[in-house]
Amino acid sequence: MTSADSTPSTAPAASGAPGTAAKAPAKDPWDLPDVSGLVVGVLGGTGDQGRGLAYRLARAGQKVIIGSRVAERARTAAAELGNGVEGLENAECARSSDVVIVAVPWEGHAKTIEALKGELAGKLVVDCVNPLGFDKKGAYAITPEEGSAAEQAAALLPESRVTAAFHHLSAVLLQDPAVERIDTDVMVLGEARADTDIVQALAARIPGMRGIFAGRLRNAHQVESLVANLISVNRRYKAHAGLRVTDV
Amino acid sequence: MTSADSTPSTAPAASGAPGTAAKAPAKDPWDLPDVSGLVVGVLGGTGDQGRGLAYRLARAGQKVIIGSRVAERARTAAAELGNGVEGLENAECARSSDVVIVAVPWEGHAKTIEALKGELAGKLVVDCVNPLGFDKKGAYAITPEEGSAAEQAAALLPESRVTAAFHHLSAVLLQDPAVERIDTDVMVLGEARADTDIVQALAARIPGMRGIFAGRLRNAHQVESLVANLISVNRRYKAHAGLRVTDV
Repeated sequence: MTSADSTPSTAPAASGAPGTAAKAPAKDPWDLPDVSGLVVGVLGGTGDQGRGLAYRLARAGQKVIIGSRVAERARTAAAELGNGVEGLENAECARSSDVVIVAVPWEGHAKTIEALKGELAGKLVVDCVNPLGFDKKGAYAITPEEGSAAEQAAALLPESRVTAAFHHLSAVLLQDPAVERIDTDVMVLGEARADTDIVQALAARIPGMRGIFAGRLRNAHQVESLVANLISVNRRYKAHAGLRVTDV
Repeated sequence: MTSADSTPSTAPAASGAPGTAAKAPAKDPWDLPDVSGLVVGVLGGTGDQGRGLAYRLARAGQKVIIGSRVAERARTAAAELGNGVEGLENAECARSSDVVIVAVPWEGHAKTIEALKGELAGKLVVDCVNPLGFDKKGAYAITPEEGSAAEQAAALLPESRVTAAFHHLSAVLLQDPAVERIDTDVMVLGEARADTDIVQALAARIPGMRGIFAGRLRNAHQVESLVANLISVNRRYKAHAGLRVTDV
């Protein structure tokens, strides 16, 4: 088997080897940008996960707009969430936001995103969709043709900066105002460090959470589908399980 | 998106509903069997991960036999590990063990297992193999035809009790005698509770570790391939990352 720390083909060359060019010191992975001024849109913001994320980010001081196909529904949900959350129709939400979280059901993922291609051009898109199926034995992973929901988003949005994050959060905990801290890490995936750094910084605004860089989009499928396992954990232990990355 | 706690099709029926049969109280998920008398074999026990697991289990008081294609190599590694570890040729190792951990490289997985079909009949097999590929961009998941390494093992070993576990451990930490505790949870997958309970109990023998039930074998692929993400974490944070399940 392959251990996470025995990676011969990706190990850096011995730094003292003759002919090795001097390398700039690695950037501190915890040196993240100030994101407090960014407007965050949440597509699918009237669903449980979308509402929960919108609520937590707004409560942490972020300006949040939730989007829905029907503006009236977005406005109603926004009013319920308080904390300055606004509600707009999806296209308007995308246009008005700097960072757009996609929290729609998997079934509507491709269609919703494709329809907003223009509005999402240039935006930082955070896909948090988990493609899952359910049967009598519980949940199971669905593999999208593109590899993952995030890769599907990237394929449909060539002019956007697509990342993936916020897959493993409990909508119950997110939405419960009595819960002050949510003890979990958020795995953040993407191709450009500037983008994943922003998403990590956003996650870190929520008390108890850290944003942890966890690879490129081609490794998003297993992060998305791990929710099937967390569902099994939740059933067995009657919990709202999250994940913490240790030694980091 | 689907939250881990919003699972309409798998939610239990309301317990007070008319006509609902009285249900036995759920078994305490932490009520695990005493496994201290079981002999644990480790196929691939001369590799880094196999050695590390063998060392930790033996140090915790378990009787451990490491297996190798070449008996002499197994004996040498066993002598180095101490703690009563024995070394035998693979088939002899499988025959002499109650629980057999498969820790061979993915490339040799099918072949090794197939050759031991007879010896592994009736045994509790714990697959901890991560099918990964590597290129210039790092690690990426490989999807076996059967869905996962564990499902491949189950297909090749119809008379064995196949489970999957121990995927996310750092071989560096496992093998370092100065490390007293390894703060991580072990996701355990399988079809029969009696079997996954044994594997969870084995994991719990190692200080710092808990064995957490995390679903059926059909959900093993994402657990196996998550190591690709941990490799990215380890590179970015210069860590030996593990995973802790929160709220459990």
